[in-house]
Parts: sequence; C-alpha cells; structure tokens
Amino acid sequence: MMKLYYATGTCALASHIALEEAGAEYSTVKISFATHQQQSPEYLAINPKGRVPSLVTDRGILTETPAMLAFIAQSFPKAKLAPIDDPFGFAEVQAFNSYLCSTVHVAHAHRPRGTRWADDPVALEAMKRKVPETMAACFELIETKMMKGPWVMGDTYTVCDPYLFTLAGWLESDSVDAARFPKVKAHRDRMAERPAVSKVLAAEKG
Amino acid sequence: MMKLYYATGTCALASHIALEEAGAEYSTVKISFATHQQQSPEYLAINPKGRVPSLVTDRGILTETPAMLAFIAQSFPKAKLAPIDDPFGFAEVQAFNSYLCSTVHVAHAHRPRGTRWADDPVALEAMKRKVPETMAACFELIETKMMKGPWVMGDTYTVCDPYLFTLAGWLESDSVDAARFPKVKAHRDRMAERPAVSKVLAAEKG
Repeated sequence: MMKLYYATGTCALASHIALEEAGAEYSTVKISFATHQQQSPEYLAINPKGRVPSLVTDRGILTETPAMLAFIAQSFPKAKLAPIDDPFGFAEVQAFNSYLCSTVHVAHAHRPRGTRWADDPVALEAMKRKVPETMAACFELIETKMMKGPWVMGDTYTVCDPYLFTLAGWLESDSVDAARFPKVKAHRDRMAERPAVSKVLAAEKG
Repeated sequence: MMKLYYATGTCALASHIALEEAGAEYSTVKISFATHQQQSPEYLAINPKGRVPSLVTDRGILTETPAMLAFIAQSFPKAKLAPIDDPFGFAEVQAFNSYLCSTVHVAHAHRPRGTRWADDPVALEAMKRKVPETMAACFELIETKMMKGPWVMGDTYTVCDPYLFTLAGWLESDSVDAARFPKVKAHRDRMAERPAVSKVLAAEKG
C-alpha cells in the first residue's frame, strides 16, 4: 500500500486525485506547513527537499508531481490515466505536466514563496506584483494553444487533468480573473463533478 | 527523421546529446537568441512558448526537456537510456529530471532571465545576488542526496546524465565554485569523455 505525504492547498492535490482515480490502495499523511513540519528532521528523512508531495512505495520514495503522476498512470494501467503504450502520446502528457511544474507553478510561487529567489523586501513586493500578469500569460497559453478539450489531452481523461485542476485553483488567490479562460473554467467545473475529486477535496479538508 | 530546434548555451543541449546517444537520425536548427529568433512568428508557430528546445517528430512537435528525454529513451529502447520497462525506475529518472527543470533551471534563470518574474531593476539585482546561493543549495542536494554515482542513477547511464551535465555547466557563470561538488565534477569529466558529448558540443559551436 502506498502512502502519500501532502499539505492542503499545494500541488500534492494532483497526485492525491490521481491515486483516487487509479483505484489505488493508499493512505495519506497531512504535513502542516504552518508548523514548518516539512522542515522537520523526520520529514527531511523522507524527502530531503522539504517539499510535498512525497509518495512512499514498496520500492522506495518518489517525489516531484510529474514523476508521481506518470508512475501512478503506469502502475494502474486499467485506469487508463495516460497513453502508456504510445511514447509520443505519453510524451505529450509529460510535456504538459512539465510546463505546469517548471513554468506555471513557478510563476505562482513568486507570490507566496519569493524568498526562494530573493531576500530584499523590495524584490519580494516586485515579484508579487507581477504574479497576476505571469499567471494570466500561462493560462492564456493553456487556453488557446495547449488544452485540447474537453480534457487536457482531448476526449480522454489523463493525469494532466487533476494537475491542471490543482493549479487553476490558484488563479483567484493570484488575482487573475478566471472568467478570462472559459475552457479552463469549464474544465474546473467538469473536474469538480468527478466523484474522485470531491472525495479527495473532502478528505484534505477533513 | 526528427528535427531539433536548439540555441547554444541552453538546456536544449541535454536533448541534443540524448539524440546522439540514442543513435537517432536527426537534423538540427540553431535558433539565435541574440536576434530574438525564438520570438519570431515562424518559430512561435513551432513552439508558441518561444523557448527551446523543440523536437519535430513524424507525429507532431514536442517541447519541454523532461518530456523529450523520456520520449527519446522510449523511442530508442536499444540505447537503454532509461529503465523503460520498470515504472518505478522510470519514475526515478523522471523525478530527477523534474527537479532539474522546475528547481535547478529556475534557480539559474533568475540571473539572466529575471524579467520573467519582476520588472523593478532593484528586484532584478536582488535576484541575481541570490543565484550563487540557490544554485549551490541545489547542487549540494544533488551531490549528497540525489546522485547515486558514477552516473546519476548509479551504474547505468540514463537521460538524467546529459541533463545534469548541461545544468552543471552553468555553475561557473552563476559564480558557484564547482570544486565544492566533487561527485558532480567527476561526472562532468566523465561525460566530456563520451564521443556523443564531444560530437554534440562541437556541432553546437560550429
């Protein structure tokens, strides 16, 4: 049985939903960012990066959302969460998820986590000011060039969908008007209707 | 035959080396950042993100280094560039590459590309000042916790290796003393001895 370490309001939600969609047997451990639990010696022994998510498997520990999502898709082939037998289709899934982790998540992080990249308070404020612009630019690209619809990869639901759902959920707190992106908005509504998604959202709140 | 769009001094080098190691038939197109060719209408039609690398395949265009590296490994199984039949081993490769794209590359980019995240000149200077510290922290983690050695994944060369080689090549320009990381340093030397690496480095210079 796998064990997912997560914190609420983080990108760990994507892997949490994917585990549920896969029909995996798993348990969860909630990490408190408020008490800096991710920097505790106990947690650093699990994930020396001091970040979430981490996924404990019978083979070892995995980190990084795109890797965990690909692993879940490959480990539960019956759930059909990615075109795992088609290297090109699989790479399209990876490319989308890689954009989310390296560009979209990073754009967002300059609001709450600017101290990763600068110490000067003036710089931190300047970073925060630009987040609405950078996040909107990311979602403009997703809306117009990347998302095939109704799901990210077209007619078939994949692990890209819970990941996009997770990051699109940050638009409001990043002061971006989500109504500018109707395809992404419809995708969020469609996701919210899935039993796996409501179950996981309730579990993370509980 | 695949076609790789690259620019010199960029992360595209990783995919370029991987194509060579795979024994792929491919051609290359050099994009000039000096003339902002990556923002030309012609190039934006290939990659609307205006970034390199892009890989044109007979099925369509792929972007994002981790996705391209996984695709190359899966498309040329005889080259054994990743444990493609083992979801956990494959995920370990993905996790390493995901860390490079979302954390290490991003840490570096705050020196030459700070305008992605702030407009204030004071902020840009503050970002630049912190790059030696953030890049050193990344490579400390790679050196002590992530790299198995002699190759990233242990005894077997994978697509993680050209990617690490590429980003480790930025340490000096980021004012980090590479001698602090002897395993990474030895890895760079080991990589430089590979015929595929010297061939690609010569081609990118030429």
